[in-house]
Amino acid sequence: MNDKAIYLRDIALDAAQAAWAEQRRAAGLDRPLGVERVTLDAAAGRVTAGPVYARLSSPHYHASAMDGFAVRAAETAGATETRPLLLALGTAARYVDTGDPIPAGFDAVIMIEHAQRLPASAAHPDGAIEILAAAAPWQYIRPMGEDVVATELLLPANHRLRPQDLGALAAAGHAQVDVFRQPRVAIVPTGSELVPPGTPVKPGDIIEYNSLVLGALAEEAGAIVTRLPIHHDDFDALLASARAALREHDLVVLNAGSSAGSEDFSERVFSALGALAVHGVAIRPGHPVMLGVARADPEGPARAVAGIPGYPVSAVVTFELFCLPLLRAWQGLAAPERVEVEATLTRKVVSPAGDDEFVRVCVGEVGERLIAMPLSGGAGVITSLVKGDGVLHVPRFSEGVAQGAQVRVALRTPLSRVRNTVVAIGSHDMTLDLLSDFLGRRAPGQRLVSSHVGSVGGLLALQRGEAHLAGCHLLDEASGEYNTAAIAQYLTPGGVDVVVLGFTRRTQGLIVARGNPKGIRALGDLTRPDVSFINRQRGAGTRALLDYELKRQAISARQIRGYERQEFTHLAVAAQVASGAVDCGMGILAAARALDLDFVPLTAERYDLIIPAALFDSARLAPLLALIRDPRSGFAAAVQALGGYDTAQMGVVLSG
Amino acid sequence: MNDKAIYLRDIALDAAQAAWAEQRRAAGLDRPLGVERVTLDAAAGRVTAGPVYARLSSPHYHASAMDGFAVRAAETAGATETRPLLLALGTAARYVDTGDPIPAGFDAVIMIEHAQRLPASAAHPDGAIEILAAAAPWQYIRPMGEDVVATELLLPANHRLRPQDLGALAAAGHAQVDVFRQPRVAIVPTGSELVPPGTPVKPGDIIEYNSLVLGALAEEAGAIVTRLPIHHDDFDALLASARAALREHDLVVLNAGSSAGSEDFSERVFSALGALAVHGVAIRPGHPVMLGVARADPEGPARAVAGIPGYPVSAVVTFELFCLPLLRAWQGLAAPERVEVEATLTRKVVSPAGDDEFVRVCVGEVGERLIAMPLSGGAGVITSLVKGDGVLHVPRFSEGVAQGAQVRVALRTPLSRVRNTVVAIGSHDMTLDLLSDFLGRRAPGQRLVSSHVGSVGGLLALQRGEAHLAGCHLLDEASGEYNTAAIAQYLTPGGVDVVVLGFTRRTQGLIVARGNPKGIRALGDLTRPDVSFINRQRGAGTRALLDYELKRQAISARQIRGYERQEFTHLAVAAQVASGAVDCGMGILAAARALDLDFVPLTAERYDLIIPAALFDSARLAPLLALIRDPRSGFAAAVQALGGYDTAQMGVVLSG
Repeated sequence: MNDKAIYLRDIALDAAQAAWAEQRRAAGLDRPLGVERVTLDAAAGRVTAGPVYARLSSPHYHASAMDGFAVRAAETAGATETRPLLLALGTAARYVDTGDPIPAGFDAVIMIEHAQRLPASAAHPDGAIEILAAAAPWQYIRPMGEDVVATELLLPANHRLRPQDLGALAAAGHAQVDVFRQPRVAIVPTGSELVPPGTPVKPGDIIEYNSLVLGALAEEAGAIVTRLPIHHDDFDALLASARAALREHDLVVLNAGSSAGSEDFSERVFSALGALAVHGVAIRPGHPVMLGVARADPEGPARAVAGIPGYPVSAVVTFELFCLPLLRAWQGLAAPERVEVEATLTRKVVSPAGDDEFVRVCVGEVGERLIAMPLSGGAGVITSLVKGDGVLHVPRFSEGVAQGAQVRVALRTPLSRVRNTVVAIGSHDMTLDLLSDFLGRRAPGQRLVSSHVGSVGGLLALQRGEAHLAGCHLLDEASGEYNTAAIAQYLTPGGVDVVVLGFTRRTQGLIVARGNPKGIRALGDLTRPDVSFINRQRGAGTRALLDYELKRQAISARQIRGYERQEFTHLAVAAQVASGAVDCGMGILAAARALDLDFVPLTAERYDLIIPAALFDSARLAPLLALIRDPRSGFAAAVQALGGYDTAQMGVVLSG
Repeated sequence: MNDKAIYLRDIALDAAQAAWAEQRRAAGLDRPLGVERVTLDAAAGRVTAGPVYARLSSPHYHASAMDGFAVRAAETAGATETRPLLLALGTAARYVDTGDPIPAGFDAVIMIEHAQRLPASAAHPDGAIEILAAAAPWQYIRPMGEDVVATELLLPANHRLRPQDLGALAAAGHAQVDVFRQPRVAIVPTGSELVPPGTPVKPGDIIEYNSLVLGALAEEAGAIVTRLPIHHDDFDALLASARAALREHDLVVLNAGSSAGSEDFSERVFSALGALAVHGVAIRPGHPVMLGVARADPEGPARAVAGIPGYPVSAVVTFELFCLPLLRAWQGLAAPERVEVEATLTRKVVSPAGDDEFVRVCVGEVGERLIAMPLSGGAGVITSLVKGDGVLHVPRFSEGVAQGAQVRVALRTPLSRVRNTVVAIGSHDMTLDLLSDFLGRRAPGQRLVSSHVGSVGGLLALQRGEAHLAGCHLLDEASGEYNTAAIAQYLTPGGVDVVVLGFTRRTQGLIVARGNPKGIRALGDLTRPDVSFINRQRGAGTRALLDYELKRQAISARQIRGYERQEFTHLAVAAQVASGAVDCGMGILAAARALDLDFVPLTAERYDLIIPAALFDSARLAPLLALIRDPRSGFAAAVQALGGYDTAQMGVVLSG
């Protein structure tokens, strides 16, 4: 097996898909798995196993389309308003409700509103009706077969049944329908470091959630899923479980933890029970995927098996590329329908040349065009799947994509939702998260997406027309003023007129461990040899504020241990302090409070929202601005409750 | 109640929506119904009841991103290939697997491939590693909080949970999540004429399937549905059931059969238990909808109630307009996302001026543009919902839409599927249904949509660029040739070059009742006073053939009883004969066989596929043409099995 495995390693995506498909074809696993008959109330979402023909016509008789009187059209000729005609009830006219069968020999219906009912008389012992117009043959009759003619094709094979299809099946005389059997999928989490959700964790424990994610994906695709308990790195136990799972399931997925051991165990298990067609694919993320065919017993049925990598993004990407198409094909369905859109890439993506790379992006509409913001974070960052609206595929042998390039994005978020997105690029502040939550609750369907690139990054995004607003707190060292100089530097030359909207004044200071064990009191303490620091990235307003204060106090940055290490958000700085990795970092009070840390206040600063003047009165921003500007929305009060924020100028136009 | 009801009748759509919304607001039914806590494995598809913040960071410790050795970066300075550095295992370097915590005091990881392991020695009792390069601080470490920082906003409120969200929740320390309670919906079918699916039917019975369709729609929208058994028109029983349903459900839907009685009962029940805000809306279909609020007991909780009309298309249209948005709002969701596209209307739509009208259309892509084909059929034709790809909304006070107009269509079928559609407009033949079935099975994702407008209608559609192919069997009276003269007349002047592809030769004749009780033997019998006939529509090839034969045999059409009544397909003609409404009609053998009727053959005719030359080699048509032209596809054999077809020329290019 070892020799063979070497050849299987790191082959290209299309070669891997072809190799597994060929192996499955040879094992008879390339077609729907079987057929079962279900009643209509259990058939929604299932897939027809063959064409369905109508057994009955619908209507299955000539039916009155109105409440009225069935008549013989020929006997109504000549009736007019001036020469009304009498038709005897019982013989020449018969009352029919909507849906009633037309009596034999009758061929038209007169609406009840157009017939005057007369009492019984000697000439008309059952009464009569008086009509003022002739009836056309077949008027107000739904002829037999108007909807469905018996024997005609009602639904094709391989059709996923929608609500209306159930109605058509019933109308055409069916009470049951033949559908493809649902694939059964077993997911086996393996790895000694894994613990289930809800377990109190200690360092080294990894919360096992891939089986939740992959299981839900498989169920969405129509499969019946068994999530097995976590298997620690015990070869014999894993082999026994895999063998048992192969008896009952069409696809068995081993999802290895990230430790080296668990991946090796997966390979040994698959080799013991079958053979791998693929081990290692040149994609990023997702390299170490395994794909094969195995059997519980030598004479048992062949099953598909997959070894899915442990990092969560790798797991989702490989499961979507390899397993979901299989689950659909087993139900007679084509690959999932994906909406693709053209978008402008907001920053460059660098790719290793040998791999097909799949990059998660946020998508919004600014002005007339869609923009795609690549999400940072490696294969371990599941929130990139949560935040991502779509996937950019960077093909093998390209070296990446330039900023500003037009790219095609496979959208996951509905386009209408993308269009209802406010794009904020700029400095991070926790109040933006709060604003996002308020917007989602008060204006369902609207959302705020934030990309945290620092204040200068936000102004540059406005300049390129890639954002609706930028959070900004740039102190001008010369004037001591906020934002005005930076706007003049970055936006005015390009002719971008902006409104500066007051948002918060917030307290900046040093985030320190609880109890402040190092006794840090002022910026001067940062130069002490026993104090380590974590900085913010270049372009961040907080870093500009630090540099301004260092210069003012004549402190050399080179004396600060950790000045060169950087994080991108206040919370990330606070997390570094909380973990004990560093003694302090600069940030806002709310971040310190959030992680139960102590805080040494240094100064208060303005945090404004910079909004292009052309968008300020737009419908896109209206719900968001209403939240900010209307005190009754409760937003300002919620910001104050965070602590460290002054909202006196919230919603005030400061310039523009 | 009666006076009030009059004012409620036939108000405009927006007024009706506003009136019900106001009534629900007053009753506290305008917001989510409650919150429940569910475990993550039961949370997919549910909607968050509040913002979710991270409890844990992820990673919750500094984790090794590689298998290798944890080191102190400062102690690796100066290592190069020419000056390797030794680090003692245990003290200066410690082995870590991917995911392992970084030991306290260590701050970098060297990949296992970049370290040479040396055996234990006197100087290094636990062994050592030799490295050839310095390590940068924090290299190959996933810092705590790289993915999620504890306390940060993970998911907003009103967010429908996707598979990846479950992973993020677990990663951030959640094992459960608070979600909005699912609305409970009761659907009560009412009407004495209703019978459940699977019941042997007699004239007047209507198969009850609206509860299946509405129930599946409500479940798709996230509701828990109770479908009650059919209620006959018994006021007391219906009142008791409605009262019981109001105790347990948030929305109670009475779905009245089409008979006058059942609708009246619904109104009386709602009036007894509550009040209607709306009775009758100016929409088509769906006029007689009722919307209100009711209570099981005077002190019981308020519930929403709806009386949904009995015709299936009316039922679906009104349920989608009024009830689905409510079910979504009750779960904190905005109106469903609809994809809208611009399309060219292939034939005019006439609308009553006072109503908002909703017209179901098929959509395909021909050349560069989308075309929308209105589906005929009234409120009783559920197959229009099955065939329809989308809905055209003709607003109130417009009088319709002209042929060729650009319209906006709310798409239900994914756009990618619309783009994989072959559009056939022209003469109907049952072999097109068979072709559609073969295509769906052999090329999943591809489909054939047929619109039956007769042979001339098909050529006109090709001329306007609205179809990919047209089935055509037009006999030229002068030459006795098929299709050539018609192509010269309708297509050549517009410069549309076409390929004539041989498809079938089929037997045309008279479809008569089983046993041929009227002894019909030839066309001459149609003039007998005891024989009634049903014709095909003008422009149909079958009608042209009839006229040609009548002329040849010098028979006057005016002597044929029923010559002026017309149907649009062979099967519809056969259904008329089968129902006993007429004695005979002209059509194909397969239609007679399908309904177990007898057949008097008259002649064989050519039925060709006319395909624009520009499309003949297109990728769009390739899978379909492969089925027709490759005998191994089995399609020709399946056509022969229908009876009455000669496939000798199938797939042969006859001209072009």
